[in-house]
Formats: sequence, structure tokens, C-alpha cells
Amino acid sequence: MNSENVFEHARFVLSHTSHPGNIGAAARAIKTMGFSQLALVNPKLFPNPQASAMASGAEDLLGQAGVHDNLSSALSGATLVAGVTARRRDLSHAVHSPREAAQLLVQEQRPVLLFGTEISGLSNSELDHCQMLITIPANPAYSSLNLAAAVQILAYELRIAGLSDTALIVPDQDNYAPYDEIERFYEHLQHVLIHIGFLDPKEPKRLMQRLRRLFARTRLEIEEVNILRGVLTAIRKVD
Amino acid sequence: MNSENVFEHARFVLSHTSHPGNIGAAARAIKTMGFSQLALVNPKLFPNPQASAMASGAEDLLGQAGVHDNLSSALSGATLVAGVTARRRDLSHAVHSPREAAQLLVQEQRPVLLFGTEISGLSNSELDHCQMLITIPANPAYSSLNLAAAVQILAYELRIAGLSDTALIVPDQDNYAPYDEIERFYEHLQHVLIHIGFLDPKEPKRLMQRLRRLFARTRLEIEEVNILRGVLTAIRKVD
Repeated sequence: MNSENVFEHARFVLSHTSHPGNIGAAARAIKTMGFSQLALVNPKLFPNPQASAMASGAEDLLGQAGVHDNLSSALSGATLVAGVTARRRDLSHAVHSPREAAQLLVQEQRPVLLFGTEISGLSNSELDHCQMLITIPANPAYSSLNLAAAVQILAYELRIAGLSDTALIVPDQDNYAPYDEIERFYEHLQHVLIHIGFLDPKEPKRLMQRLRRLFARTRLEIEEVNILRGVLTAIRKVD
Repeated sequence: MNSENVFEHARFVLSHTSHPGNIGAAARAIKTMGFSQLALVNPKLFPNPQASAMASGAEDLLGQAGVHDNLSSALSGATLVAGVTARRRDLSHAVHSPREAAQLLVQEQRPVLLFGTEISGLSNSELDHCQMLITIPANPAYSSLNLAAAVQILAYELRIAGLSDTALIVPDQDNYAPYDEIERFYEHLQHVLIHIGFLDPKEPKRLMQRLRRLFARTRLEIEEVNILRGVLTAIRKVD
């Protein structure tokens, strides 16, 4: 498949979640990253007002969430199941970073990200359902991510992998001042600096070079050149 | 600097946070990613039992957190201030993705990540203190990340960049002017602009904002700040 549809088909499965607030916060995390499929396996309390409160504007995901009494049902139809685990549990599983895993998952028809309980993570029998493990490279001295925080990181990585290059944020360049206007500003600046005695007219080069370099880095906008020239004009009027 | 120390020196600043639970959850997010410096600007409720509960094993970060009554104090000593904002606010700021930003921040001596309130994010005057903006590329139809979730993503990206052996080789940045010196330059500039009659002392904000954003894009060097302040001093001597 192409990665455009990963947003439609990726499924986030939370197993045996204890705190309904975490389910709501996870729904919010999933929706902010453009995904919509949430499934729950034996949640302790669901539906629940705390889940709704923490979901904020993502209550629709809670309403549509599949609630399952066994893991196999929640995983049905998955083309690849990736379990998220804090520790490397088993040498026989391939363990990936979130970034590596996202590159693989984004190629899948119906990938699943599976998250265990808040306290103990995925059980051994749940791990047996996974084809791949993902470990967030957390602080070894304190690796206890909140469940919704782990969901947020995985959803984020999957989003970045799923977005095309064209999604990069580039500024609109219509407002940039053209070369000639910037040159006129430099001339004006040099006149004023000589006038106020800051620049030696016999040796203007070094200082003007520094100032040109400084402003060159900013990509001056038209309005900014106008402001700067206004300042220069005001300086000459003072004396 | 080398990126090993980014874990020691990176500072996460939360401004005007409404919900103490978010402060605790943010502390947890920061600690799981190996960072320890948290600063708060006018938190609504802090210290608070909800903050402690949500911090889980990261209560030590709450205990050490600096609590400030103004932003400048919270940013003191920063070598680069990056504001995290949901929307593209202003063309004149460079806007980076979390991943791009992490590559830059990890090279800094004392980078700051600045986060605004839960409802409205960073104010315009807070944005004026930033030299770079970071936007998490969220779902355009629902971009409302929880505050601690946004902190988690940025801390995660900074950790990945900090752990990476392949961190980009960038030019030595020891020459950049620190936050405090740049603020003193802005004060000096404002005085002079009022003096020459270019700036209405009753309405300084809009123009100073434009000028701050212009210079924020340049990453002013120490020597450049000295030159600019020399120019400002020379203007005052003319009359």
C-alpha cells in the first residue's frame, strides 16, 4: 500500500488498561497524529467519564473504539502486529526503535501497535501474538513512560513516516525584499554610520561586511527594510 | 559542546500552566527521556498534589523546578530559546519540525524549550523571546496535543538527537550572543528609537516585536551585538 492510507488503517490496541483516563489521553494522542482506529482489550473501566474528559476533542474515537474480551479478536485482520515494550523481553523477537519500526509499519496494509498495562506492560502470552517488538529508547534510570505518552511517541513516529516530503513547513517567500532594495538599505546604512561617526569613510569595508553578513542571514522582508530605512531617516533628522 | 551534555543542560520551561497535573506529567515525560531541568513561569497551582501524583517517579524534578514570576528570569543563561507552538504564527520566525529543531538544539550549550498555556499556547510577547519556533506536524483537523504530550515528543526528539553518534557537524557556535545580552541590546535599541522619535513610547510593542523577530532569525553573534550597541551609542552622541 502507499503510506497515505496508513492513517486510515493503522490500529492502536490497548490491552487491560487500568486507568480510564489513560484510554482517553491515548485517544487524544492518536487523533492528534491523524489516526482513528482504537481497540481495547478488557479495559478495567470503559466507557467512563474520566476517559471522556481526557479525550478532550477525541471523544469520537472512544465512541467508535472496538471493545474486545480477547486479544485475538482485537488483532483480527492485522497484517503486522508490533508490541510496544519497555524492556527487551525475548531474544527471539526482533526489537526495533520507534523510528525503524515506523518505516516498516507504514508499508503495511493493516498494521497494529499493541500496548500492555500501565504497570507490567505486555504479558508473555501477549508477546506471542507480536511479530515485532518496539522499545522506546528511554532513560535507563527511569524508563517508566505513561501509557498515553508511549502511544503519543509511536503515533508521532508513524505520522512522520506516513507524511510525504511535501508536508514540510516552508515559509511563504513572497514577502522577502528583493536584492536591489536590500542594496539601497546598505547604502543608506553606510551613509548614516559615517554621519554619526561610527564608520570611518576611508575604511568602510570591514564593518559593512559584518553588517551585511548579519542581515543576509535574516532574509529581510520588504516591510522590515522599510522599518530599518525609517529608523535611518529618523537618525538623520535628530541633529 | 558535545551532545552528551544536552541531557544535563537542556531546560524545559512551562509558562502559565493551568493544570498542575500537566506539570507533573511533563516532569515525568522529561525524566523518562533523560533530562532533569524544569522551570515554571507563574504556574496557576504549584506545588500541588495533582502535580506530584502525575509526576509518578519524577517528583524529584518538581522539587528542583525553578518557579519564576517572569519569563526573562526563567530564560536566563539560555543560549537558544525555542518556542513550541501549534500554529504558524508569523512569517518572520524560522519554523522547524521537532526533528530539525532537535538537531540544532543538541549543539547548544544551554538550549531552552518553551511551552505556553494549555488553551492558547505562547502569547505574542512570549514569542518575542524565542529565536526559533517549533511546530509539531499534527493532524490539521485536530492539532490539540495535550501539553505533556507535546513535551514528551520534543523531549523524545531531543533524546534521539542527543544519543545519535551521527549528530551533524555544525560550525562552532561559541560566538553566539546569549539570551541576556540580546535582551540588553533590545532595551538599548528601544531607548534609542524613542530618543530619535521613531518609536512612540506609549505604543512600543508592535515595532519592537517586528525588530525582535528580525534579529531573532539572525542568531546574533557576540561581536555583532557589540557592533550594534556601538552604533546605538554613537547615535546618542550625535545630538
